[in-house]
This record gives sequence, C-alpha cells and structure tokens, in this order.
Amino acid sequence: MQTYAIVGKNVPRNDAEAKARGAALYTDDLKLPGMLVGRILRSPVAHARIKHIDVSKALALPGVKCVITGEDTPKVKYGNWRLFPDTQDEYPLAVDKVRFIGDEVAAVAALDADAAAEALDLIEVEYEELPGLFDTGAATQEGAPVIHEYCPNNISVNRKIQYGDIDKGFSESDYIREDTFHVHAVSHAYLEPCSSLAQVDLDGRITLWTSTQTPYIVQCLLASTLGMRENDVRVIKPFVGGGFGGKMELRPFEFCAAFLAKKTGRPVKFTLNREEEFLTGRRRHAMTLHSKVGFKKDGTLMAKDLKIRLDGGAYNAMGPTATFLCGNFGAMLYRYPNYRFLGEHVYTNKPPASAMRGFGAPQSLYATEVQMNMAAEELGIDPVEIRLKNAQVTGDKIPDVATISSCAFKESIQKVAEMSDWKNKRKNLKPGQGIGIGCYSFISGGVFNWFNTQFPFSAAEIRAYADGTVHYLTMASDIGQGSDTVLKQILAEELGLRMEDIRITSADTAMTPQADLGSWGSRVTLMAGNAILDAAKKLKAQLFGAVSARFNLNVIYELECKDGRVQAKGRPEKGVSFGEAVAMVQKANRGEQVVVRGAYTPRDKGLVTPAFSFGAQVAEVEVDQETGVASVKQMWTAHDCGTVINPKSVEGQLNGSIQMGLGYALSEQFVMKDGQTLTTNFLDYKMPSALDMPPSKVVHIDSYEPEGPMGAKEAGEGLVSPTAPAIAHAVHDATGYWCKDLPITPEKILDGMKQNKK
Amino acid sequence: MQTYAIVGKNVPRNDAEAKARGAALYTDDLKLPGMLVGRILRSPVAHARIKHIDVSKALALPGVKCVITGEDTPKVKYGNWRLFPDTQDEYPLAVDKVRFIGDEVAAVAALDADAAAEALDLIEVEYEELPGLFDTGAATQEGAPVIHEYCPNNISVNRKIQYGDIDKGFSESDYIREDTFHVHAVSHAYLEPCSSLAQVDLDGRITLWTSTQTPYIVQCLLASTLGMRENDVRVIKPFVGGGFGGKMELRPFEFCAAFLAKKTGRPVKFTLNREEEFLTGRRRHAMTLHSKVGFKKDGTLMAKDLKIRLDGGAYNAMGPTATFLCGNFGAMLYRYPNYRFLGEHVYTNKPPASAMRGFGAPQSLYATEVQMNMAAEELGIDPVEIRLKNAQVTGDKIPDVATISSCAFKESIQKVAEMSDWKNKRKNLKPGQGIGIGCYSFISGGVFNWFNTQFPFSAAEIRAYADGTVHYLTMASDIGQGSDTVLKQILAEELGLRMEDIRITSADTAMTPQADLGSWGSRVTLMAGNAILDAAKKLKAQLFGAVSARFNLNVIYELECKDGRVQAKGRPEKGVSFGEAVAMVQKANRGEQVVVRGAYTPRDKGLVTPAFSFGAQVAEVEVDQETGVASVKQMWTAHDCGTVINPKSVEGQLNGSIQMGLGYALSEQFVMKDGQTLTTNFLDYKMPSALDMPPSKVVHIDSYEPEGPMGAKEAGEGLVSPTAPAIAHAVHDATGYWCKDLPITPEKILDGMKQNKK
Repeated sequence: MQTYAIVGKNVPRNDAEAKARGAALYTDDLKLPGMLVGRILRSPVAHARIKHIDVSKALALPGVKCVITGEDTPKVKYGNWRLFPDTQDEYPLAVDKVRFIGDEVAAVAALDADAAAEALDLIEVEYEELPGLFDTGAATQEGAPVIHEYCPNNISVNRKIQYGDIDKGFSESDYIREDTFHVHAVSHAYLEPCSSLAQVDLDGRITLWTSTQTPYIVQCLLASTLGMRENDVRVIKPFVGGGFGGKMELRPFEFCAAFLAKKTGRPVKFTLNREEEFLTGRRRHAMTLHSKVGFKKDGTLMAKDLKIRLDGGAYNAMGPTATFLCGNFGAMLYRYPNYRFLGEHVYTNKPPASAMRGFGAPQSLYATEVQMNMAAEELGIDPVEIRLKNAQVTGDKIPDVATISSCAFKESIQKVAEMSDWKNKRKNLKPGQGIGIGCYSFISGGVFNWFNTQFPFSAAEIRAYADGTVHYLTMASDIGQGSDTVLKQILAEELGLRMEDIRITSADTAMTPQADLGSWGSRVTLMAGNAILDAAKKLKAQLFGAVSARFNLNVIYELECKDGRVQAKGRPEKGVSFGEAVAMVQKANRGEQVVVRGAYTPRDKGLVTPAFSFGAQVAEVEVDQETGVASVKQMWTAHDCGTVINPKSVEGQLNGSIQMGLGYALSEQFVMKDGQTLTTNFLDYKMPSALDMPPSKVVHIDSYEPEGPMGAKEAGEGLVSPTAPAIAHAVHDATGYWCKDLPITPEKILDGMKQNKK
Repeated sequence: MQTYAIVGKNVPRNDAEAKARGAALYTDDLKLPGMLVGRILRSPVAHARIKHIDVSKALALPGVKCVITGEDTPKVKYGNWRLFPDTQDEYPLAVDKVRFIGDEVAAVAALDADAAAEALDLIEVEYEELPGLFDTGAATQEGAPVIHEYCPNNISVNRKIQYGDIDKGFSESDYIREDTFHVHAVSHAYLEPCSSLAQVDLDGRITLWTSTQTPYIVQCLLASTLGMRENDVRVIKPFVGGGFGGKMELRPFEFCAAFLAKKTGRPVKFTLNREEEFLTGRRRHAMTLHSKVGFKKDGTLMAKDLKIRLDGGAYNAMGPTATFLCGNFGAMLYRYPNYRFLGEHVYTNKPPASAMRGFGAPQSLYATEVQMNMAAEELGIDPVEIRLKNAQVTGDKIPDVATISSCAFKESIQKVAEMSDWKNKRKNLKPGQGIGIGCYSFISGGVFNWFNTQFPFSAAEIRAYADGTVHYLTMASDIGQGSDTVLKQILAEELGLRMEDIRITSADTAMTPQADLGSWGSRVTLMAGNAILDAAKKLKAQLFGAVSARFNLNVIYELECKDGRVQAKGRPEKGVSFGEAVAMVQKANRGEQVVVRGAYTPRDKGLVTPAFSFGAQVAEVEVDQETGVASVKQMWTAHDCGTVINPKSVEGQLNGSIQMGLGYALSEQFVMKDGQTLTTNFLDYKMPSALDMPPSKVVHIDSYEPEGPMGAKEAGEGLVSPTAPAIAHAVHDATGYWCKDLPITPEKILDGMKQNKK
C-alpha cells in the first residue's frame, strides 16, 4: 500500500471555519444594489388547461416592477437529456397547460417580498380543469387522459436490458420467487432552500448565482431557454447547503430570475420557502418493482427478471437516468448469469420525481436485498453466506456495462459480519430484537453522455507561482460534500505541497475550465480528481525539465515533487523549492505565467461508469411490541471506496447516508391527496434528527481502483442504499414481518406481527 | 491605409449603458454581510515623533471592533520601485514618526460610520513635534532637519542624463537663454473617491476590491506589507471613476482594510471623503525647473541644460519615475544635439506628490514650450516655424532612449496652424486677445522595469467557444478611460467578430492572466493590445489549421478571420463560421476547451518607451483688461496617436485633457500653510467644470506605429501637456506677460500687465 503525505489524512475541510463562523455566503446571503425580489405563482390544480391569465392588477400594484407568464417567454422546452431532445418536456413557465399542483404559472419581480407576495394574489388565472392521474396504474390505463401530447400512453421512457438466456436460467433454477415491492417518494430535504440571483452584465449578458449542483448544465439550459448563446450566460455557485440530486437541473426560478433581470435591468433574486420546497421540489422516485429471481439449492443465483415502473410525476426531469440506472443496479452486486430488465417511466399529475442520492439504487437494491434475505431464509442459508457465494469480484464483467476493475465486496461482507458479531447476534438476540444485513454497489460517475456535452467530463487548470503556491481552477461543485477539500488533497499530494499552498476556484462557468458535468452520481472525486492529475502531470513535466537542466541530471534520474521541493527522487540536494522550480520554468518562457490544463473523460469504460464501489451494512433493531415502533440500536458498515482520500469526510458521508436511510426506511413520507402534497414542513415530514442517530461503526476496506485518482472511487452515495433493507431485515428478524412497501411504519409492523401470529 | 471593420469606428463604450443607468458598481457600492466601516486617524502635525498612542478608550466604545496602529502591523515598508528597495520608504501606518499633516497613524473598524468617526476622536496620540520643511529650498539647506533617517540631505533620488557635448553646444550657440520656472501641485480630482473593501477568504487569504489603476501592484505590495505570499492576496478592480495616476500605488487604507479584515474576520470597507482626498491624496509634483537653451540664429537648437527639483512631499511615491521621465521629456519633441539633465527629488513635510496624468511631462513641457515661444519671439521667428525646424521625425534617435519609430509631429504642427488660421489670427486679433501654441510628445508605456516584475508587462488569454463567442481575459485596468472597449475592438477586428461576441474579464489578479502593470503611462492600448494580438495569432493558427484540413486547402492559401467566418482569404465558400472552426479544433483535442495565451513585454526598445506620440495645440484667449481674468475661447488640436482605434474615445480623452490643462494653467491650486492644505473641497479647489470648457476642434493625423497594435500608440495622456503652455503663450500674446510661475492667475496677469506698461 502506497504511503501518502496528505491523502488518507483527516485534513479539515477548507470551508469548515467559514461555515462555523457564519462567514460562508450562500446565494440568499447575496445582495446587490437595486435588487428586486422574485416570487412564483403556482398552479393550485393538478391538471388543467390555462384559458386566460390577467396580470394587469398585479402590475398595477405599487412596488411591482414586472410580471411574466409563459406567453412572455421564448417558450423553449428544456430537460437534462439533451442527447434526446424529445425527452425535454418542461417549460420554465407553463404554456397552455399545468400538470401538477405547484407547476409554475407566472412570476413577479417587486421591490420587496410583501409586494411580490401580494402581486401573486392579484394575478387572475382561468383554468379549465382536466382529470388528474395520481398513480402509474391509472396513468397507464387504456384511455387515460394524456398529460403530454407527444406521449399518448403517458409512458415517456422505457428501457430494456437483457443478457444471458432468462428462460433457461429460470428453467435450471431449483428455487424461484417473485415479489412486488413498492417504494415511496422522499424529499432531498437539503437544509438550504433553493435560491438564485440574476444580474444583467455589460452587453446584456446574464450572471446567475444559484444554489446548484451543476453550474454547467444550468448555464447551457438557461441559455437555450432564454434564447441566448451559452457563453453569454455565466453561472456561479456560491456555498451550497446540500443538493442530494435535487439541484442538478435548470429550475424555473433560475429562468425567472434571469428573464426578469433582463426585462427590468435590475438584479432579481428568488428564494423558495420550505413549503414550496416540499410542495414542488423534486423527490426520489416512488416505484413499483416486480422482481423474479431463481437460485440453485445451494444458493447460486441463476436468473433475475426485473420489471419496474417509476412514478415520474408531471415531467421527465432525471427520470430517464433513474430508469436506466435502476436496471443497471438490478444487475450489480451479484453475479446474475441471466438477466432481464424492463423499466417504464410514467407521467402522473404529481410533482416531478428526479435524481436523488443513490439515483435508482435505493429502490432497486431494496428489492434486491430484501428478496435476497427472503431467499436465504427459505433456502436455509445464512444471508451472509448466500451473498459471499454470489458476490461480484474484481474482473467480473457485467455484459454491456463494464468490467469491474476493483471490488472488495466479499471482504466487506466478511468484515461487517465480523464487526457486528453476526453469527452470535443472530442466535442470541432477545424477542423483539433483530439483526439484518443490506449491501450495495454504486457507480463513480456516469459514462453515458445524456447531456451531450462537447467538453471533457471534467477539466482542471493549474496556475503555478514562484511564491510556492498554486491556483487550481475547476468547474466541479462542492455542494457541502467536501469535494473542494478532497480535490485539494489530491493535488497537494501530487505536487508535494501543503493544503494552504493551494487556492481553489470552483464552479464558475465563465472562469473555471469548461466543463464539469456537476456533482451527481458520485462523479467528482474520480473525474475531477483524474482531471487534476492530468494537469499536474503536465506541470511536473515542466518542473522536472527545469530541475534536470539546472542540475545537469543524468537522463535516468526519476524526479519527484515532495515536501515543497522538486528534486531527484530521494535526493533533496539535487533540487529546488517548488516555487524556485516554477520561477525557472517562468524564466525559460520569458516570464509567461506557468499554466497547465488537464481533462478527464471516461473512455472504453462501457456504458455506465468507470468504477464500482461496494459495501455491506448490518443493522440491529429493537421493536416495541406494544407500539410497533422500530428503533435502530446500532449500525455497522464495511465498504470499499478504493483509496480513502479523507477518512473524516467519508465518515461524514456515512453518517449522512445512515440518516437518510433511516428516514427512508422508517419515517419520511409524502402524504398526498389528489396530487396535493400535505406534508409541507419539517413537523409533518418526519426526517430523522441528530437525536435519532444510532451508534455507528465503520471499516474502510483497503482497496485500489486503477481508474481512480490515487486509487479512489465513489464514497457516500452508495451507502444510502443498504440501510433500508438492513433495517427491514432486522425488523423481520425481530417480528417476522417482511416489509415490501416502504416506509416501515409502526402500523405496518403491528399489522405484520398480527398476521404472523395468525 | 488598411481598412478595418471595427478599428477606427465609434463603437460605443461597453460600460456606457451600465453607467448611464446607474447599474455600474463602484467599490463603495459593494456591500457584504457583516461588513465593518473603517476610518483612518491622521496626523494633525507635519513632522513629529510619535511618543505614545493609547487606543483603549476607542476600543471601549460600543460598536468598535478593532483599532490598529503601526505597532500592530508587520512594519514592512513599501513603494512602487521594488527594483530599488532603498526607495521604499512608506509604512502603511506610521511607525515612530509622522511626516505630513494627514499621515496615517491609526485605523478603526466599527459597526457603523458614526462609531468609527467617534472612535477616531478617542484615540490619544502624544507627539513630539519636529521642525517642518515646506519647500525644497529649506529641505536641502545644510543642517536641515532630516525627514527620513536613511536620507540625511532630504534628496532621495537624483537622476542624470547627458549626451553630446553640452559645453560645445552652448559655445556654438548664437542665442542662449536661461529661465527658471515654477510649476505647482494640482490634484487628480478623480470623481470617485478612493475606496477599498477587504474580505478574508477560506484559508485566510485576502480578497480586496479596490478603486485602483494597478491591481497587480496592489496585490504584490499588499502581500508584502501583510507578510503574506503574493498569491494569497487577490485584488479585484470594480468600476473605477478615474485615477489619473492617483490610484497606482498601494495605499494605506487598502492595507488597513485587509489587515482589519484579517483581525476581525469580517469584511471591512474604507471610503475616503473628499476632504481626505484633498488633504492627503497624491498630487502632481510641484517643481522648479531651471532651463538653459542655446540656438543658432536661424532657430536651430544647439543645446539644453535642464536642472529640476521636485517637491516630493513626505514620501517617494512615484517621484523617482517622475524625476526620470521629466528628464526624458526634456529631450523629446525636438532634436537636441547636446543635452544634460539633473533631476533631484526632495522630501518635504507635505502630502506626497506622485504620478499624475502626463507623469513629468506637463512640468517639463511647460518649461520647454514656454521657453521655445520666448526664444522664437526674441529670434524673430514664427513659433510654428521654429518648431518645424527642430521637430523630431520618424527614425530620429534619442541617445540611450530609443529610435522614434513613428512621428507625425511636423504634420501636427502644420495641421494645427492651418486649422487655427494661425498666421492670420496672429496678426489680426484685437487688443486683449491672444493666440498661443504648445506641443507635446508622450510615451506609450514604460520599458524600465522599476516594479521588478517577473511576468510579462501585459498578458492575454482567449477562450474560444463553439457558439461563436470568445472570452478575453486581461489584467489591464479600465479606470474610466475606456480601455476595455478599445481592447475588445482590437480583438474583434483581429478575429473578424462583432463586439457582442466578446466577453471581457479584466483586472482581477486571481482570475486574469499574470500580469499587467496597470493603467499608467498610456501603456494599455499598446501593451495589452499587443498581448491580445499575440494570443489571437495563436488562436488563428489553430483555427486555420482546422479549416485547411477540413477543406483540404493547398498549402499556399492564406486564411483569414472575417465577418464571423474562418476561411480562405476572400473565399467564404472555403471556410466555416468562427464557432464551427472552434468546434473543429475542440473535437480535434478530444473536447478540450480552446484556450490560448499571449503576452507582450517591450524588448530592445531602449530604456523609456516602445513608442512616441506627438501633437500640437493652439489656444485662443481673451483677457479681461480690468480683472485680468483669462478666458479660453477656442482650442485646436492636431495629434499623432498612430492608428485611432476609437475616435470618440480619443476625443473624450482630448476633452478631459483640455479640462485638466485649463485647470492646471488657470485655476487649480493647493493653498497651503505650514504643510496644511487649506483647499479641501471643490468650492475652494477650483477645477473647471463643463461650463468652463471652450469649443475644441481636433484632427487625428494619419500615422502608423510599427510597434503598436494595428499601428496604435498613446492617446490622451500626452494631450494634457500642451494646453498650459499654449494658454501661457496666448496670454503673453494678449498682454505681454510671460508666466513662469503657474497657475496664471488674474492677479499675476494684472501684475504682469502693469510691469509691461512701466
């Protein structure tokens, strides 16, 4: 195992102090002279034609500077799947129709928030209501109302995956089971509400400060919806208080801020309130998963046939990717010799679902893992053993997807069993107590270019200075996950510098190198990390050249950047300080600044991802026999994220994942009635708090991913998946109840316990 | 003459609309959450030792967050002449001594302006007063008090220039005259008062928004005075409302903002009020010039011996450069076969003088031009003719300085004489009316590297996009003179684009390419213009390569960027749009963004400047015989600035120059008493207003400077010099009075008229 100076160390996050002191500025903290306040008028009906909108009274209100409706805009549809323009189904402001309660109908810019709010009440909209579709069953029935004209059956995307011989696989199976799982929609519940501030620059260009995971995507889609050229739009990401997939698309308020800024010539800011967030924000897809699996008696997996339906809500959003990934996650983790998948993305008149941490995995793996535990029970095999028998290993090929270049899944299973004292606990827990296991595999960014970018997937620029510092520029987006710190660690390690020697500028589409596709799918460490190493390699070549020439080094010398020096390997006397080496290169180029650029785009890595991470988790649960309330007593996790760049950061990700997994499994729920979201605050929407967190132990398995920077791959997103199936398993262990319909509420547990007693 | 699409056109300034709408943000417009207000305590005495400072009462005042004195600081001296560290004589806050009334003694950061102002009153400073020196005579007397310990005779810099044989020159002269001229100090009087806002970034770095002409210089000197590394300081120039040389150094409030931001962890802003500006701001050097010139009878110049003394005030500031340049200006404009110069920069206990528009030229040329007119009169030669006889021409060598690569001085003289109907007017003006001429030569930026930069003098980056736009990054500073527009014109011309196709980012030391030495000495058009052409050449090479390959062009084809296309010259069908060409280059580089960098440093261009501009001006004046008030009736100007990039912009510069020249000649004056400036507002300090402006006509002489971008060179700074001598000449013509002691006040005119009557 290679030893590192900075990689693998608990370096404090570079934003920690600013956040602790309250000095970190989020978008809503930004104020510009003459700034107007924006508000959006939303549809109160789930499905309707817009007959008429009268904004005259709103416009007449003192303090109101501008009111816009869809009719005022260029009416350009957008969506993240630029590669397939047919999938782009959303207008920034509704044109002709509204499709869910909360759909954006008009926007106002006013001198203050009161005037803006009052103006909303004065906009008169005449709707012709249409029947609403609130579940995928109703939406796909013959003769159902059509939500989007272009899509008469309301199934906007379907995705098939097939390899092996599925019929043969089942015919050779000794044991086959079929289950239908329902998983529910949950909220990203990022603590920073969405906010955008737009300003018209010189020459009519737009600068948009926005709370986003994907500045580049927002830049491109905002430009197209405004009818502008991409580079006439500049997107800057200030500090972001979480995204989790909910801030990775162009959003109507971003368009409205920019459009109103252009119309009024003044800066315009929109900040959503929590009610708007819950009412209209993206959410994780609710799905129905029908899974059929076949095993040999000894537990060997023979075949899997997975059919899923996503409740997409009113628009595609990231649904196509979730559909695609869900099918891929269905074939990951274990060796399925024969596999078939059919995924359908269905429109309903509900708030659009989209990407959320895990991106199809929490749903897909809930089915996989619960069913695996069911099968193990019925086959009489320890759930740990059945997993070890089928687990993917390094070098495994997933047909049409990739060869897995590193995989410490078996080690993770073994380790978590050992940590949790699995064998003993399984036998010796008291009644009402249970233990369960869940596993995951996840991607390290995507390969499939759905956004159709012409730029590298990630790029890096390094400017090196004679004072021993470097300035690192990247469009990668730290959204609270700490990527700026991790990327700085990688660069510091590679250049033999200290963290404080590196200035980082990230996520500004005009200033940082084009492009980076953003923070989603756990792509940043691997992709931006590889881009920075590519740039660093070019820088080192120049520095090494200068030092070789200065010290007249024999050509066979290897050189290194270490401890702030550039030198012949292990021979500090044959070298100079980093700054001196930079000065030499600069002198050799007649003073020109030392600047290098690097890039990374995964190539020849299949269709899904360049690298796979793995892990296993055990949950211990106690169920109150009277109330049915399940409490998680302890969590154990062992996982393979390749080289751990920053252990504390990975642990932070783990804690966040467990918190999200807990909520997903036990408490979070959108209560809805006829398309109306009723849980629109944190009292009703029960997200676990710090007080709900169980003790947790984690082991990072030693592993090295050849495609990753210094061996690193995904950490923290995959971990959101195993918690719910592990808890479901433990609940079953404690009560006999198998939950196939998330969340695992006390009512369901009590009901399940009653059924079992019968 | 080459024809251009955009160069030479009256393209509107890119900031015009923002400024007209009030949307342009100057430093004082910027607000950050938690921002503190800074104020400076200044010395009320001209020369004293600081015995003791007690800040405890100020610190105890509610709302006061921090108070600093020189003792709290790293005590690092600074000054722009980094190449000679001995000349760096200034502390950001006084250490041990104060040297002028207004010298910075302490600084306060408070919650609001009232608390900050009150805190100043509560700081107790005990001074031991020392004798003050208020003119260069007193300061250079044997036994005079010493202002700076390192400089016992108070002469901090002396500069000698000599070529030819001065004694022989005079001995061969038929006519010799010696005159002593006194020119006075005047204020830059920029309309935007100085302002700086500092913020502590992540990792303790500093970002400083500041109203400056020289972001790079401020970055470097701020870093050294703070004890930080250069690249841990970022300087951003917002819109600037004029500089004229008064904002080209590090200034104490910039240091105080940064230092207090570090101490308090909060943003801190300082904005000077007009009284502080007049009391303590830099000013143009007052000088005494003793000039001896020898002529042949026919008016041929034989020799010049120039001795000057600059009243530097308490610190060197840009005095060394002014001294150096003053000597060089003394040898420019005319052919001096024998020349000797001695310049002395003298410390006094007055506010420091420094660079101001013209940078030594207005003083030097006042002496040259008035003396030339005196000589012409005495030799009985028309002042126009004596100039034409001695005027420099293209190809002239100034020993040790440079070869003049373009010079349309004679054409300028002839043209202005023709425009003004010189010969007729001279004879036919009524009593009390007069006409006079003044000429100038000026530099297009400096060659001598007094700042000791290791970077190119100017650099440029171009990022080109497939959407047909480019992003141009430069550290050059638009301070209201319109350089951003002019540089965009040069780039648009070179790339065959429109103005709106170019985004410009300028003057941000962290983001724009290192370096640019700033806006002074009329360096921007030539130097930044050459840097951008260097970058454009590299970009075009790539675009041409892609088009040649795509169209399989014979190697002898010349290609061009024209009308938004990249094509074989004159054959649009063999070419593609600019954006398509960029996309091709990008594709060829696997998607990597198309980025090029260029640079310019004058080399092999002597010691002073790469290019010289020239011009001549005629003023018509009427003097009220009762009051002595001189009114300028009309101005005519003909000048050679090489290719005129933007005629309206040059005319704007001319109008500003005339306004400044008028004030210098007739009305502006610092009234001082024992080192105390008494004229500290615009009522007392009489700057000409728009209503005082005479009608003006201008002709740009057709000329091409080989070293300049598209033939361009300096415009607008040199023009500040001829106005005062032309007016003085006209006043003499009207009254018989020769002013050798600026300004030409009504009292002096009346007095002069009386003398002549005697």
